Amino acid sequence: MPDVDAAPAVTATRRPRGRPGYDQDTVLRRAIDLFNRQGYDATSINDLAVDLGVTKSAIYHHFDSKEAILAAALDEALDGLDAAVAAAADATRDERAYDRLRATVEGAVHILVAHLPAVTLLLRVRGNSPLEQSALERRRRIDEQLATVVKQAVDEGDLRGDIDPEVISRLVFGMVNSLVDWYHPDGSIPPEALAAGVAGVLFQGLHR
Amino acid sequence: MPDVDAAPAVTATRRPRGRPGYDQDTVLRRAIDLFNRQGYDATSINDLAVDLGVTKSAIYHHFDSKEAILAAALDEALDGLDAAVAAAADATRDERAYDRLRATVEGAVHILVAHLPAVTLLLRVRGNSPLEQSALERRRRIDEQLATVVKQAVDEGDLRGDIDPEVISRLVFGMVNSLVDWYHPDGSIPPEALAAGVAGVLFQGLHR
Repeated sequence: MPDVDAAPAVTATRRPRGRPGYDQDTVLRRAIDLFNRQGYDATSINDLAVDLGVTKSAIYHHFDSKEAILAAALDEALDGLDAAVAAAADATRDERAYDRLRATVEGAVHILVAHLPAVTLLLRVRGNSPLEQSALERRRRIDEQLATVVKQAVDEGDLRGDIDPEVISRLVFGMVNSLVDWYHPDGSIPPEALAAGVAGVLFQGLHR
Repeated sequence: MPDVDAAPAVTATRRPRGRPGYDQDTVLRRAIDLFNRQGYDATSINDLAVDLGVTKSAIYHHFDSKEAILAAALDEALDGLDAAVAAAADATRDERAYDRLRATVEGAVHILVAHLPAVTLLLRVRGNSPLEQSALERRRRIDEQLATVVKQAVDEGDLRGDIDPEVISRLVFGMVNSLVDWYHPDGSIPPEALAAGVAGVLFQGLHR
């Protein structure tokens, strides 16, 4: 029965580069944290290597460039938001737009909590490169999709019609996105309560 | 009648430094815009001098240092928000907390619109220096004051009591602050309509 003793040797063979041998996901997590702490532009692959205590080639083993890391982080944040909003925009579903919208807001809060560092990075992107511009373009399309659902909910008579649907879409995402500035997933407010609270304020308002 | 011809000479005498002779407020406006465009840390007094087309000493004529410019910008944003929230927190006023809170939200939107670049700069401050830390501390005190008024409005029975007042305070400011990301004062939405829309969504909610 050599299984237990053999395991470390197999692991070592699988990770020929990088001490102490971080996998791709760990490199991505640490890179996102470092970008958020000191800014993407101000961070080099060398900074990341020092932070991880590995060689630069250990990082290039997982990612072709610093921009490839940023691309992976932005995709992580955008894919989640995309999926949440696309589900709401699916008008073939036998559900009122109001309910789809409310589910989207709660879904977006959950995405944000589950991918807090990646969403934080996304929200700081200013369009300084074609990659950043394409991320901003994806954000715009998500905003537009949400505005379409808002308009449907107004047309169905469930949502107030006195405010431009695009403004409503921006205010909704404004409140949801602002969570990155203060929410701690391991704090006293569980994600479920947070999602319910945000949706409660947005849809019913603060008035008793 | 030499007045017309004499005017330029008088002007030149009054502005011994700086071509074309910007006043302190113009230097501050241009500096805030430049800080917002390329980041405070990445901007030097020399960059600002080049942007304005003046010498560095023309800028030092108005401000002792780059940090003094940042201090003036942050004070501009914080003084306005402070005043809006302090008025609401004044419980001696013969008004229900709910009405004071709503007036504060509308007031904060107006401050934000009137001082958009300065507020944008404030919201990007991360606490990288004692000056930035003190600005964050002032933001925290403003949050706390607002949370106190929220609590009063809950106690008076006007505001929903199922969400932590501090969370409500953060959600309210989250929505208000997010305006800096998209609102253009010279666009199609007048400040009055914006303030009414934000307060309408926050207090009555999106539901019809």
